[in-house]
Amino acid sequence: MASQITREWSGINTFAPATQTKLLELLGKLKQENVNSLTILVMGKGGVGKSSTVNSIIGDRVVSINPFQSEGPRPVIVSRSRAGFTLNIIDTPGLIEGGYINDMALDIIKRFLLNKTIDVLLYVDRLDVYRVDNLDKVVAKAITDSFGKGIWSKTILALTHAQFSPPDGLPYDEFFSQRSESLLKVLRSGARIKKEAFQAASIPVVLVENSGRCNKNDSDEKVGD
Amino acid sequence: MASQITREWSGINTFAPATQTKLLELLGKLKQENVNSLTILVMGKGGVGKSSTVNSIIGDRVVSINPFQSEGPRPVIVSRSRAGFTLNIIDTPGLIEGGYINDMALDIIKRFLLNKTIDVLLYVDRLDVYRVDNLDKVVAKAITDSFGKGIWSKTILALTHAQFSPPDGLPYDEFFSQRSESLLKVLRSGARIKKEAFQAASIPVVLVENSGRCNKNDSDEKVGD
Repeated sequence: MASQITREWSGINTFAPATQTKLLELLGKLKQENVNSLTILVMGKGGVGKSSTVNSIIGDRVVSINPFQSEGPRPVIVSRSRAGFTLNIIDTPGLIEGGYINDMALDIIKRFLLNKTIDVLLYVDRLDVYRVDNLDKVVAKAITDSFGKGIWSKTILALTHAQFSPPDGLPYDEFFSQRSESLLKVLRSGARIKKEAFQAASIPVVLVENSGRCNKNDSDEKVGD
Repeated sequence: MASQITREWSGINTFAPATQTKLLELLGKLKQENVNSLTILVMGKGGVGKSSTVNSIIGDRVVSINPFQSEGPRPVIVSRSRAGFTLNIIDTPGLIEGGYINDMALDIIKRFLLNKTIDVLLYVDRLDVYRVDNLDKVVAKAITDSFGKGIWSKTILALTHAQFSPPDGLPYDEFFSQRSESLLKVLRSGARIKKEAFQAASIPVVLVENSGRCNKNDSDEKVGD
């Protein structure tokens, strides 16, 4: 990646001013600690919003969205620099397509990553789905088999479609915590990691809303509910 | 069902006045044609909003909602009468739970229906999901094996979560038609019905929003977008 000229991360300018300020503060702190790049690997099942999330982070439509079709078979890397800091995001094809594990995609992702260091795995799924199933387990197993158990200590769970109303008047916070817990539980079970080890990894859960209609707070920042 | 005393369908009173008027007109027409009851069978995968839809039709919380858990194993019949007309709705357990076909549920539904005539199969799925998969096919096959191919000519496809914004600025109408088409296609394929025969059944597709936040038109009626 060093030989490429990296485009300016100008999409930051589209973020809420408060978000821009916080982000630039954060990049400044990272630079003080001699951290000047971050590589995020985005994975998850098909149709959960991986590419939309990549576009939201970059602040530009850098990867195309195909809600109804499975994505192309290759990962895509998008790099942006800002204030001497380089952000690399790797968007990948859905690990489940048509109800089956996408072994070819997994294989291509592994080969694509051979000479790259991943700082963060952004595991994407939807907030507004109620049930976990065997496929979630299969995905977690496939990720662990490919990247080792250590990948889970670098993982952030991103839940898309955050701007939604839980059914039957369930409070949003309660829905969020139930959904996170059941998803983390099935991922842990698929990864075959001991409960204590998985809890030690303490995977952060973040809410993502990629459509334009997100609620905003007084500082114009997107908020869940 | 004849020996039971059927409760008044008072939930109608909670509908928009324009909807009430249309519904009572319709019931009047059906009575003129000597139709004085309607039995709706509600089926679909787990967690798609079957029970919420039943509650919305009855206009009351008659069945309990368990977004995160699989439902009880038994079907539930709810009956309401209005102006000499009886509505029976049969809510059923999810046909897919945890990623597998729920054979036990299917068997119990079949036995439950032995002495009942079904006028309408309301097949429920979510509008706001982008991919169809092999499980949809398996469900269609299971329904056909259990009730015969004729069931599809009595079917209405109900798409829940209608109040949602399609991703990437896709127009709502286009999203709706793509989602309907892909779902009908996979159902047909699972049911192993010839394309022409399935088209002849011309399954109506309806939009359903069970949360309180649906858009409304000038007559206070819920509308999709």
